[in-house]
Amino acid sequence: MNAYRTLKDRFHRLGVISDAIGILDWDCATTMPEGGADGRAEQIATLRVLSHELLTDPTTTEMLAVMAQDTSDWRTDPWVEANLREMQRLHLHATAVPMELVEAISKASATCEMGWRVARPMSDFAALLPSLTEVVSLVREMGVAKGTVLGLDPYDALLDAHEPGTRTRYLDNMFSELKEFLGVKLPLVLERQNERPPVVIPEGPFSESKQRALGEYFMGVAGFDFTRGRLDVSHHPFCGGATDDVRITTRYDENNFTSAIMGVMHETGHAMYELGLPRAWRYQPVGMARGMAVHESQSLLIEMQACRSWEFVQFAAGHIRNAFNGTGVAWEPENLYHLYTAVEPGFIRVDADEVTYPAHIILRYQLERALISGDLAPVDLPGAWNDGMRNLLNIVPPDDRRGCLQDIHWPSGEFGYFPTYTLGALAAAQFFAAAKRDRPEIPVALEEGNFSPLMGWLGEHVHAKAALLSFDELLSSATGCTLDRTQFETHIEMRYLA
Amino acid sequence: MNAYRTLKDRFHRLGVISDAIGILDWDCATTMPEGGADGRAEQIATLRVLSHELLTDPTTTEMLAVMAQDTSDWRTDPWVEANLREMQRLHLHATAVPMELVEAISKASATCEMGWRVARPMSDFAALLPSLTEVVSLVREMGVAKGTVLGLDPYDALLDAHEPGTRTRYLDNMFSELKEFLGVKLPLVLERQNERPPVVIPEGPFSESKQRALGEYFMGVAGFDFTRGRLDVSHHPFCGGATDDVRITTRYDENNFTSAIMGVMHETGHAMYELGLPRAWRYQPVGMARGMAVHESQSLLIEMQACRSWEFVQFAAGHIRNAFNGTGVAWEPENLYHLYTAVEPGFIRVDADEVTYPAHIILRYQLERALISGDLAPVDLPGAWNDGMRNLLNIVPPDDRRGCLQDIHWPSGEFGYFPTYTLGALAAAQFFAAAKRDRPEIPVALEEGNFSPLMGWLGEHVHAKAALLSFDELLSSATGCTLDRTQFETHIEMRYLA
Repeated sequence: MNAYRTLKDRFHRLGVISDAIGILDWDCATTMPEGGADGRAEQIATLRVLSHELLTDPTTTEMLAVMAQDTSDWRTDPWVEANLREMQRLHLHATAVPMELVEAISKASATCEMGWRVARPMSDFAALLPSLTEVVSLVREMGVAKGTVLGLDPYDALLDAHEPGTRTRYLDNMFSELKEFLGVKLPLVLERQNERPPVVIPEGPFSESKQRALGEYFMGVAGFDFTRGRLDVSHHPFCGGATDDVRITTRYDENNFTSAIMGVMHETGHAMYELGLPRAWRYQPVGMARGMAVHESQSLLIEMQACRSWEFVQFAAGHIRNAFNGTGVAWEPENLYHLYTAVEPGFIRVDADEVTYPAHIILRYQLERALISGDLAPVDLPGAWNDGMRNLLNIVPPDDRRGCLQDIHWPSGEFGYFPTYTLGALAAAQFFAAAKRDRPEIPVALEEGNFSPLMGWLGEHVHAKAALLSFDELLSSATGCTLDRTQFETHIEMRYLA
Repeated sequence: MNAYRTLKDRFHRLGVISDAIGILDWDCATTMPEGGADGRAEQIATLRVLSHELLTDPTTTEMLAVMAQDTSDWRTDPWVEANLREMQRLHLHATAVPMELVEAISKASATCEMGWRVARPMSDFAALLPSLTEVVSLVREMGVAKGTVLGLDPYDALLDAHEPGTRTRYLDNMFSELKEFLGVKLPLVLERQNERPPVVIPEGPFSESKQRALGEYFMGVAGFDFTRGRLDVSHHPFCGGATDDVRITTRYDENNFTSAIMGVMHETGHAMYELGLPRAWRYQPVGMARGMAVHESQSLLIEMQACRSWEFVQFAAGHIRNAFNGTGVAWEPENLYHLYTAVEPGFIRVDADEVTYPAHIILRYQLERALISGDLAPVDLPGAWNDGMRNLLNIVPPDDRRGCLQDIHWPSGEFGYFPTYTLGALAAAQFFAAAKRDRPEIPVALEEGNFSPLMGWLGEHVHAKAALLSFDELLSSATGCTLDRTQFETHIEMRYLA
């Protein structure tokens, strides 16, 4: 019991430091003058090192060992049990990697990321190759180190850090079936779309202040609590900040309001998850979000399932039209709905619609696995990328800027992250279907701009559960079955082919 | 040499953590939604505890002991010697106070500060009394603890934390002479002022955006580098942030532009000091600002000496008039100069002019000494305050809101801080006089809005020196003599009685 109390205090401190890093990161992306960059990098690195020291020091190891032997009664509380499991997991991931390797990856990826910022706009893969090769090699080493301790293949060990319990043998199967489904359905979706009159694009300009006001209005509609969070601007939209101070960002294009508004709702989905985590387990590992796939399921549920639904678009259309004083057919609910559900194979992942998005992920998954296993040399990445795009979407990027240089993930050392986007999309469809089954009033409520029934269901079945259950257990407890690809497929059929 | 390297690394880390706290503090005052307050308090407290642990742990103590014995050659570098002296000083201050007392003060002052926010607007001293009594008692205990280690009286030990080396026997003498001088001169200043036609107050409203643009313009004129800092809004103006990311704040009153503009220039003076500290000693104790008195000298030099001078007002008047489309006599340089140098005894320290300001400080100095020594019981504070005001400025506050409840310092546990405001005012006059003696072109340059000669002199003689010298050594090296009250007195005579 004393050992557990010591561990709780220690992880509490880690949670608080992590919140401090969250605010420093947010500030860096939204507010910081450029001269502060070096100092900020050092502040964040120092807090990360302090956290790593706290997580890996002998006392933590010893207390976890004591608890592993402990079989007292009070441990029958599943939250305590799960908290210890999460502590153990974090400790294993942290101790598995020698400090020198952590530092080497941090340094190499900082260099590679800087190189990427120059190489991408110039489509200069050759310039990035040396530093990317270095990053891949070091991350592989990390995968081997973690895999040895966790009893996993190197890539599985990397996956496990982002979505605990996810394995390649599971993804291989899932992605191959999904690929087949989309291969059959995408042509049908495009055919159906072509039978309709083309979407009319609303004409701008749309001032930033109006887009911002509208975004904040829809955030409020979804239940976002502005006393515990903010909306700001950054180049890459994200959800960050700290406990009870959740900060989302977007970027505005004065010629096109659609992406900012939906981007805001996407990040609002992330934020509602963070704001709905259980107060009683604040700062404890079991009180944090389950993993990146569940996080992405919450943002995609709000954006893709709820906000792009015909029901919600009917509600939203009037507000959008009024915000920009729109007139004519472009502003009719039906046209806006088709605008918000348009499908088109393209080169850029972050611009992709929900039908073609999984293809972008499957490609990256295959390539990063091959990079980590050594089956693909970094020098061969552009060719493999373009082959994959031809194979999956039947298009070939004209340059690497729109090909293998488009994402920051690999240069910044993130391998095993991409699959969580599609796991999240599948889980979003499954959660939304279950929510509508349990609370049939949800669609009508969305038509009235009322998110309460949906948010109530998510709060109870997902947000309040934090990291108590595994990904699959969480899905089972909330929806009655483990991750089920067919719920997403049904959603695609209903929305695009019904 | 190894011990020194270990110490340098450790203090570097402390400096970086302190920068992180600086950003978190800034965010708290400018940006944070109210719900984040508890979490933020915990983030900052956690980083402070980590710093305290690092500063007081056995390794630090041991390495400092090793260095105290070391007499190697390389120590003849005065910067290294001063760095060790500053490390020793910080370590002494930190280890002198038992951790439980640090925590008790932190808790009691947080409670008292919250109570003050409620009690002040209601002029309810009785409500504050219990928590203030607790704070005074705990701070006295800290003074005793530090005094024992430093060989100082309790109040001197508290003073030493804010401006190292400053002692009461020095202040007693200085303040008593200053009080006498002002007692004689203030009536003359008021008489002279009354002989002139009254100042014409420019009529508003003055939009926040215009005030902000004008403030940023004058910041730029003074040489502020916006790639290494920002201007924002907060309820209480301050200068904070981090290395190469110095953030100043102000507040705007749309009926009165004068205080925001001069407030911005005051904080710019602080900021220029921070931005001018030597790169080579970044994050080391010797590379930080000398103390609060020197810091205040830099802000008051820019605000009071430079920006309220007739020379600068002539330059500024045109920009001010254009910014607000002003017409008529209110916008003439002479009227604006008299507006910016108006003298009037008042109840509120932060609104005071430079002639009556020292009276506010002398009062607080006498009272806080008596509180710490036990000669004054907290319950008798309101009476003692009002007696002091009658004695010093011949006015009596109608209530405690405008009396002993006006400042946050005591409720937040800051004793020994107030004197640095007046030490800063005296030093500002002395530095400015020396700068003009060394670079006679300064007044003409200010008339042209050119701060380069002044900033060049300050950069060389003050900013670049950081904490290499003591307060008095710094004054001697820059101006040829230790702190000299008569320079301030001459300034007052020249500006108000010549």
